[in-house]
Amino acid sequence: MAKKAAIIGGGVIGGGWAARFLLHGWDVHVSDPDPEAKRKIDEVVANARRSLPGLLDEAMPEEGRLTVSKKISDSVKEADWIQESVPERLQLKREAYKEIQQECQHETIIASSTSGFTPSNLQENAARPSEIVVAHPYNPVYLLPLVEIVGSANNSDSTMEAARRTLEEIGMRPLRIRSEIDAHIGDRLLEAVWREALWLVRDGIATTSEIDETIRLGFGLRWAQMGLFETYRIAGGEQGMKHFISQFGPALKFPWTRLTDVPNLDDDLVHRITEQSDSQSGRYSIRELERIRDNNLVAILRGLKAQNSAAGSHLRELDRKSAERLKGPVAKPLPTSNRTIPPDWTDYNGHVNEVYYLEIFSKATDRFLEFGGCGPDYAREGFGFFTVDTRLRYLNEITEGERVRTFTQCLSFKGKKLHLFHVLKSRDGQELATGEHLLLHADLNLRKTVVPAPQRVKVLQEIADAHSALRTPAAASLL
Amino acid sequence: MAKKAAIIGGGVIGGGWAARFLLHGWDVHVSDPDPEAKRKIDEVVANARRSLPGLLDEAMPEEGRLTVSKKISDSVKEADWIQESVPERLQLKREAYKEIQQECQHETIIASSTSGFTPSNLQENAARPSEIVVAHPYNPVYLLPLVEIVGSANNSDSTMEAARRTLEEIGMRPLRIRSEIDAHIGDRLLEAVWREALWLVRDGIATTSEIDETIRLGFGLRWAQMGLFETYRIAGGEQGMKHFISQFGPALKFPWTRLTDVPNLDDDLVHRITEQSDSQSGRYSIRELERIRDNNLVAILRGLKAQNSAAGSHLRELDRKSAERLKGPVAKPLPTSNRTIPPDWTDYNGHVNEVYYLEIFSKATDRFLEFGGCGPDYAREGFGFFTVDTRLRYLNEITEGERVRTFTQCLSFKGKKLHLFHVLKSRDGQELATGEHLLLHADLNLRKTVVPAPQRVKVLQEIADAHSALRTPAAASLL
Repeated sequence: MAKKAAIIGGGVIGGGWAARFLLHGWDVHVSDPDPEAKRKIDEVVANARRSLPGLLDEAMPEEGRLTVSKKISDSVKEADWIQESVPERLQLKREAYKEIQQECQHETIIASSTSGFTPSNLQENAARPSEIVVAHPYNPVYLLPLVEIVGSANNSDSTMEAARRTLEEIGMRPLRIRSEIDAHIGDRLLEAVWREALWLVRDGIATTSEIDETIRLGFGLRWAQMGLFETYRIAGGEQGMKHFISQFGPALKFPWTRLTDVPNLDDDLVHRITEQSDSQSGRYSIRELERIRDNNLVAILRGLKAQNSAAGSHLRELDRKSAERLKGPVAKPLPTSNRTIPPDWTDYNGHVNEVYYLEIFSKATDRFLEFGGCGPDYAREGFGFFTVDTRLRYLNEITEGERVRTFTQCLSFKGKKLHLFHVLKSRDGQELATGEHLLLHADLNLRKTVVPAPQRVKVLQEIADAHSALRTPAAASLL
Repeated sequence: MAKKAAIIGGGVIGGGWAARFLLHGWDVHVSDPDPEAKRKIDEVVANARRSLPGLLDEAMPEEGRLTVSKKISDSVKEADWIQESVPERLQLKREAYKEIQQECQHETIIASSTSGFTPSNLQENAARPSEIVVAHPYNPVYLLPLVEIVGSANNSDSTMEAARRTLEEIGMRPLRIRSEIDAHIGDRLLEAVWREALWLVRDGIATTSEIDETIRLGFGLRWAQMGLFETYRIAGGEQGMKHFISQFGPALKFPWTRLTDVPNLDDDLVHRITEQSDSQSGRYSIRELERIRDNNLVAILRGLKAQNSAAGSHLRELDRKSAERLKGPVAKPLPTSNRTIPPDWTDYNGHVNEVYYLEIFSKATDRFLEFGGCGPDYAREGFGFFTVDTRLRYLNEITEGERVRTFTQCLSFKGKKLHLFHVLKSRDGQELATGEHLLLHADLNLRKTVVPAPQRVKVLQEIADAHSALRTPAAASLL
């Protein structure tokens, strides 16, 4: 039976949590007094559906069921996880915990999305403080992997570990903070930047758009992949970190920032920011901006995944965990991919660009070779297969969000020559495309084709022999 | 004749400038007293060569010539641009300007890479203060587009505009800062984060690795594409910026940060950071980290380019500017691509992955259709060509950094059927691959194939007619 998450508060963050749990197969019950809550959550879930599944190269589980109601008591009774995302007011949060703990099962973890309060703050006066922790995510919750988990002296290690396991189960990367402090780690850094940015706008040094430009065309690109310290380690050049710090050290004493003051967020400044932000981004609705942001995040994350770096390494691990393991007979075409089409694969003709059909087939070939014991490990031994000829037949259009599968038949494997035929199918079994590939076995050090040693390609040969009984597809043409 | 840049100081930043100018076809003369300067600069240029050209879809100009010498006077005499990147000490910089202005031509702009000093600071006591400006880049200078340009009351508008033009010429995105302040814009924000991060490490709340993780798996991903204000605008949900600020406003008063204090960068803290950084990244040399960083940046930037967003829009503009315009007779196969292979196209077999051959051919098809008047504009009118069948022959391996060209022959165009044949060639004319594509003309609204109106495909028909006299390649097989 599906696990159950109760989400208290269905705003941008609560909706994001709801989407993440749902898409990982949990049933989700959101409680929010806002009469518009259902519509708003549906919109966040729609955003998540078009971006999260396609980020992965493996299919996600079947979606859970979503329920939205006004009262907390409706949602928490049978919950396995309770996520609180009510507005950032301590009293409001404490009242919510009181109501929750009257109804929920003992031992159920209540995690707060608070960006500022410590767990000790939150736990005060609670019926069972040991069950309340902080799990602070980043917006959009359904795409960004990081979640800071923080406990107080009241929380046992086993509670913190249980929290970690649940958050990992929904594809996140929990970072357990060593000591509770206001605003944890991330929001302390963000707050520092935010204050300084407000000064820059207030003093007329830069507009909101110029500040954004400075970040996204400059250091923001660095931070997306290495963060702060690793970036600076490199900036130190050959002399490394120590050199960098000693260079930068004196600057700490310079009057470079206005940080010693807190800017007064008066009506004038609010007005100026709002006006500048409108002229910067006002031509897009928030919904459009969300989609632009999500498409960009998918593109960045998929790029990092191809590099196996930063958040991309995390995505690779998720794929590895959920990759279908081949079991049993190999007498039929092998399932070599099962995935959802990401939004960044669409071209100006409004469908999946031709290139990505080959990306799917290329990965299917990799998977087939892995099944046959000739994957990346074999490359490390100095051997592999090079594609020399390919035929792609595009039979039907594919659009973003579609679930597709690939089945691979080995048409022959003789000497150094391997001949594969992939069929790409829609969820309901319709043929979308075929990919036919001739590959030659190669010595990666000599960079030339060679006949493989039979014992090294034994499994591959077994699959080929089993497939020799199958009918050759009529469309096969590279014979 | 190639323009000439003089680079004063050949460290990480000076080397990055040298690389950027060189790869944009400028002759570069670096002066640096360090006996190791030449080797260090060569290494930065090697990094740039493998990452920058492949970021673009169009070939860059022929590289300029690099000279390295010890004395400033050697380098500045004939310079069209002088970039100063000596260590961050005011006296050192002022002495450099004195020496430079004794030798250089009048009117030559001297731009300082300073991250902290204002132009007024720098200009004090200079022979010709009006020729000294700030052009502050971000590391790696050869990849990140942003450069802050700052002038004082001494600098004329025409000087600032001339600076902008030169920086645009080498592919950067200059941002002219409205008023000179210490540390301009970006480094004020960075300094704020840096101070807060030092506190977090000093207080034992987080290690360098945990802080980096928080950034690169959390908000760093957002900042790479939208920066600060646009991100927060979205976070406000449907109520937008004003709502967000009013929510966040009170937090400014919370004791969230240690910003009111400047951390004391004593030996203990330096030691702690160095040790943590070593355990985080010490398994890689700086050279390796640079390559990981650059591969990631290329992947992120190319992802954003496909989305036509943030730094990616900037790259698209650069491509548009340098795209070869088809002129004259069309009686031969048309040049449809001329580009350098980026580092993120290499797979575990150590060569360009099969998918990117198709990416090149797919873009070549797009270019061919643009030549024929049937590109994105035609799509906006509701028509286009869908690929239905493709044959790819892989004839030779390709590796990162190679310059390749594509030539496209139209084998036939009759009714709704268009038949193209691409040949991918190395710089010296060797055939690397061929791509044969059958396309059908389609109505994008009806999503079905239709015969085009002849007047709409007139130019395409002219090319097809001209190509009908050419010999059909022996390898063509989809006839």
